[in-house]
Amino acid sequence: MAEPRIASIDGKLAEEFAVPSHVDEVKEKMSAFAAQHVATGRRVVLITSGGTKVPLESRTVRFLDNFSSGRRGASSAEYFIDSGYAVIFLHRHRSLYPYTRTFSTINMLDALQFRSGEEASGNTAEVVVNQQVLPNVSKVLKQYQEVKECRLLLPVEFNTLSEYLHLLKAAAQALSTIGSKAMFYLAAAVSDFYIPASEMPEHKIQSSNGPLQLSLNMVPKILSPLVKDWAPQAFVVSFKLETDATILLGKARRALDTYRHQVVVANVLDSRRGYVVVVTPETQAELILTEEDVKNDIEIEERIVSNLTSAHNKFISQQVG
Amino acid sequence: MAEPRIASIDGKLAEEFAVPSHVDEVKEKMSAFAAQHVATGRRVVLITSGGTKVPLESRTVRFLDNFSSGRRGASSAEYFIDSGYAVIFLHRHRSLYPYTRTFSTINMLDALQFRSGEEASGNTAEVVVNQQVLPNVSKVLKQYQEVKECRLLLPVEFNTLSEYLHLLKAAAQALSTIGSKAMFYLAAAVSDFYIPASEMPEHKIQSSNGPLQLSLNMVPKILSPLVKDWAPQAFVVSFKLETDATILLGKARRALDTYRHQVVVANVLDSRRGYVVVVTPETQAELILTEEDVKNDIEIEERIVSNLTSAHNKFISQQVG
Repeated sequence: MAEPRIASIDGKLAEEFAVPSHVDEVKEKMSAFAAQHVATGRRVVLITSGGTKVPLESRTVRFLDNFSSGRRGASSAEYFIDSGYAVIFLHRHRSLYPYTRTFSTINMLDALQFRSGEEASGNTAEVVVNQQVLPNVSKVLKQYQEVKECRLLLPVEFNTLSEYLHLLKAAAQALSTIGSKAMFYLAAAVSDFYIPASEMPEHKIQSSNGPLQLSLNMVPKILSPLVKDWAPQAFVVSFKLETDATILLGKARRALDTYRHQVVVANVLDSRRGYVVVVTPETQAELILTEEDVKNDIEIEERIVSNLTSAHNKFISQQVG
Repeated sequence: MAEPRIASIDGKLAEEFAVPSHVDEVKEKMSAFAAQHVATGRRVVLITSGGTKVPLESRTVRFLDNFSSGRRGASSAEYFIDSGYAVIFLHRHRSLYPYTRTFSTINMLDALQFRSGEEASGNTAEVVVNQQVLPNVSKVLKQYQEVKECRLLLPVEFNTLSEYLHLLKAAAQALSTIGSKAMFYLAAAVSDFYIPASEMPEHKIQSSNGPLQLSLNMVPKILSPLVKDWAPQAFVVSFKLETDATILLGKARRALDTYRHQVVVANVLDSRRGYVVVVTPETQAELILTEEDVKNDIEIEERIVSNLTSAHNKFISQQVG
């Protein structure tokens, strides 16, 4: 019964969404990354992060986008690494990046200064970080360098919805070889709508033609083949963001029923940094930051990751048993 | 004849585009900035830069956007400052920024290192810039610090189309006091379409309702009241970006006829970094980078700014004469 549907998603992907030229090369890299880390006893999480760009013209001037700074994905990556995971970070170009995110609100030139007495000596003067402007730089740099040295973070970029879909499929296939040791943490804000290549004008839409009528198709639900076909043994976490709290949990439960994956992290736009509900087929856990937590710079992602790594542990031991 | 149209643009602005709460405060700042610099003999250019965000929902998850990194605006700001101008930089939040733009493709943490021998000493170790990774940092930092000290750059941020429109109006009114000494360099990629607040759904559009039909209104042509009413003595430069080269110059000439401003800089998406046409009512000048220029890191914005500052000079002397 499900067969034709899955076939049609795969078919749609190939037909209506341009395949990025480097997809095979990236798949190879992800595969090697996963194998290497599992061999040394680590688990691997694929994090998707940031919004997707949906072009309205094939030579794109205008596009549809989803609100997402990539903060949740970037901070979660750090907590997964702290918990012993290796991370594939599939993120929107220029969205927030692990570790570097700490400085995202600062103009870097405001944080740099010439080493005292060296301003005058011209272009070879040493430039140092003013740690009054960036009090955490030393700690963050150390973490970043350790992660780099141990190759615990594999960054992969996407820009458009098409790139996202094809790269996620490649990732799922690459990680299928490590079975239940793979987690998918699908935090990206993916468009539900797109304009098929065949219906897209080539050139910039002319405003002199009057008001604009846009007709957008629905994006195929890629979670379905991911769970059933591409990585059937993996631990899969999807996210549900709504602005209307009253429909949120119903939608989360319906997603679990439909796609048969392990977890939905449900959150409301306005409160997403201090409150989420982790929903599984059997359970429902509220994670909340208190005022005290916020004062101590605790981030909700630390709680989410802690909850999920425990659940993933249990999941793995059940598969084995 | 033109009166009712202008009145209706002003009315539309107030009715259909939310007024940012800080608009008066920003206007005050721009006014003071302009007065102060004109008093010391400088001219002032207002640069708009980056794309505008057009929300599809009032609690925004989805939005329409325009392709623009802000590179042209950011680099032009530097060349205007080099040419003796003070710059108001009205730019999209997180678009490229003057001087800092040089490092935009680099993860800053890859360019930092602990001062030799200090890695071990923990959180107080000095962090320095690796000038092999950022060979220009010393030169750029020096320029940036000089500009900051002389207060030659006033940054103002926008995010949505509404913010852009209201802040540009405020800027035009603020700069009207310095007459022909003001230049407007309207390089931002502004949406031609929007959804009026009254027609916007409050909550996230549900994909379960099926394919999406969007109906977008045309954004009022703000160039019209800007030239006629708000800053009638200023030197105004607009930009025209097309993907189809065959319609470009016609559209540029039509814009000059319609709005009666001084210059249109016309460019085609694919060749915009190496080729533009500066169109005025009487003239048409092609600016082209040769391969040699590109090799020497010459940027087309240097040529554009040089062309425009000369034209602005002439314009001022004609007003006086």
